[in-house]
Amino acid sequence: MVVEVINTGTELLLGNTLNTHLVFLGQELFPLGLRIARQAAVPDGEAIRDALTEAMGRAEIILVTGGLGPTTDDVTREIVAEMFGMPLREDAAVWEHIRERFARRGLALNERNRRQAQVPGDARVLWNPHGTAPGLYFARGNRHIFLMPGPPRELRPMFRDVVAPILKEIVPGGATFASRRWLVCGMGESGVEAAVGEPLLAIPGLELGYCARPGVVEVRCIGTPEALAKAEAVVTKTLSANLAGEGSDSLEELLVPRLAALGRKLATAESCTGGRLAHKITGVPGASVVFDAGFVTYANAEKTRALGVPAALIAEHGAVSEPVARAMAEGALERTGADFALATTGIAGPDGGTAEKPVGTVYIALAIRGGETRAARHFYPMDRLTFQDMASNAALNMLREALG
Amino acid sequence: MVVEVINTGTELLLGNTLNTHLVFLGQELFPLGLRIARQAAVPDGEAIRDALTEAMGRAEIILVTGGLGPTTDDVTREIVAEMFGMPLREDAAVWEHIRERFARRGLALNERNRRQAQVPGDARVLWNPHGTAPGLYFARGNRHIFLMPGPPRELRPMFRDVVAPILKEIVPGGATFASRRWLVCGMGESGVEAAVGEPLLAIPGLELGYCARPGVVEVRCIGTPEALAKAEAVVTKTLSANLAGEGSDSLEELLVPRLAALGRKLATAESCTGGRLAHKITGVPGASVVFDAGFVTYANAEKTRALGVPAALIAEHGAVSEPVARAMAEGALERTGADFALATTGIAGPDGGTAEKPVGTVYIALAIRGGETRAARHFYPMDRLTFQDMASNAALNMLREALG
Repeated sequence: MVVEVINTGTELLLGNTLNTHLVFLGQELFPLGLRIARQAAVPDGEAIRDALTEAMGRAEIILVTGGLGPTTDDVTREIVAEMFGMPLREDAAVWEHIRERFARRGLALNERNRRQAQVPGDARVLWNPHGTAPGLYFARGNRHIFLMPGPPRELRPMFRDVVAPILKEIVPGGATFASRRWLVCGMGESGVEAAVGEPLLAIPGLELGYCARPGVVEVRCIGTPEALAKAEAVVTKTLSANLAGEGSDSLEELLVPRLAALGRKLATAESCTGGRLAHKITGVPGASVVFDAGFVTYANAEKTRALGVPAALIAEHGAVSEPVARAMAEGALERTGADFALATTGIAGPDGGTAEKPVGTVYIALAIRGGETRAARHFYPMDRLTFQDMASNAALNMLREALG
Repeated sequence: MVVEVINTGTELLLGNTLNTHLVFLGQELFPLGLRIARQAAVPDGEAIRDALTEAMGRAEIILVTGGLGPTTDDVTREIVAEMFGMPLREDAAVWEHIRERFARRGLALNERNRRQAQVPGDARVLWNPHGTAPGLYFARGNRHIFLMPGPPRELRPMFRDVVAPILKEIVPGGATFASRRWLVCGMGESGVEAAVGEPLLAIPGLELGYCARPGVVEVRCIGTPEALAKAEAVVTKTLSANLAGEGSDSLEELLVPRLAALGRKLATAESCTGGRLAHKITGVPGASVVFDAGFVTYANAEKTRALGVPAALIAEHGAVSEPVARAMAEGALERTGADFALATTGIAGPDGGTAEKPVGTVYIALAIRGGETRAARHFYPMDRLTFQDMASNAALNMLREALG
């Protein structure tokens, strides 16, 4: 069955909001045996009409996000009702839910919120325990149309709890193909393809893709279980030293449970990554079991005070240097109960570079309780946030290598 | 002129990669007097053909991203060459650039990279100093088609340095409308509309939109300079206490230059936000002038060791409590040279909640050198990353209020 996604919202096209729905929906649809064939973003208002008409001509399942809010620019509900000749009616249960929700959070209700209790004709209400806008589902011939609210924290549970079960009934066969994806670290995209591209493409019926993110490359294969087993043999043999794991989006998602299983703890001492490394780790549920403490020591005086890096060492080598990275990691290990401590010091830019240490230079160190400290220099001449991501991933990769 | 964007990449539709291009392009096109009328994402391969054909029927300017890489799933170049009957030729200068680039970074070149030196017919090469894939531009009748590489760190400078100047020639009039946007904190989206919606909609010719992000709401107005001046009067008068500023995406972008201008420094002491608060601040260029040090104290023992929070205080009130938040902030202030210290302690979930302090509870404190410590309790019963974002923004908003 062909699936299309329509995201409504002027803010998406004006560049004020990142569209995170496509990632979520793509990942959630896959295990149901569904893939998104096309996605479109259209502004608030009338444009949803054309986009929906076109999608109706191509797709059996249409997922629409946004435009269900209380404000006057949210008109998806009204336009769909008009398109399909379904008069709007106030749903008493929805209105009661909205009132109850406002009362519980101690917020004042206003008449605008009442619009969210309007339901077109025979559409089925999709309950939204995380917000006031209910979702709506209706079928026309063999077309299935789902309207879902725009805020991710409302859409996501609604999709998982309500929409996915309906889709399972519509697609009774379930997945007819499977997918596997491997996370590769410390290699560029073309290097990864040079290593595995030819043997993977030689596997009959295998669909192959690569996706480069800051500091990691994903190898993605789709095919029959037999083809995927052959792909696995190629990937694990050829990329072994750089292979971080399977099925995860990020190194931290692989490393947090790994450290937890080993009963080991991690500390971080960051300069140039500015908290990004700690945030990557603490973004993984359960991180508190493995993460004791992090230091973000931007100022030199703080590297000395908080981590015990000798001021003379900073004066001799500069704050961005291998000896300082090592001393930061060792200082963090000494001051915490951790078994591993990762440190970063570098030049995120846009200013602060020199000929010898240009913007993008970073030193990373890993101190290991009862082991030798490791260190490496990398060069990521990118924008500030990409630099922070790449340096954080390089640090996590150093930990991965140490865990063996 | 009508602008459409086509993003190619199976990874976008499978949910493996976030599409950040639309935000970037939307923001960059606006000052050129251009707005994106529609965006579509299609998988790698043949689908680009249909999407491009359809867009040609509606738009004058078509921006295509992705599919120019070295791997076999990157076929935008080849398909466009075939569609428009432009034979591919190897461009000697591009090939030389690719070879030089690999040599400089000390990477091994392979034959796959040579495909990136292929240029269709009369297309103009758009130089890519940040990668191997050149962009391509060609005009057909009054249609202007730009092919740009997928990686954001390659696309962004190419757009700014090469594509934008070409667009300025195509759209000689420049912007015929203007836009202003205000960032509002500490209010929900419907509360913001209840406050300003009616008077703003009463301004003739003003286009109005709202966009809620974790912890902040943006009010966006488009119109003539006169209409926008009236809108400003409404917004600044009605929302004054909650108005963080104008034209910025985030509180941190407003606060970092503000602190710098005041010559003040900030420290952070985070538990539940896990580094997100420090990362927000250090993500702003120039943050090193105002940010001394951050602590991520997940373990109770670390709150005591690194920040001097009395163990007895934690035992009496619990780590998630107002007294501990205050002690964390005051400890961070005492231990650093900062003028302000923000602290967060809460329950990010998914586990760890109690009846009295459910998942989503967070205490935030602000210690002020020579002033009284402030504290507040908030409740953000959302997913882990949204919770971290909302709590970090609530902390930044407390600092904003203190700065007056």
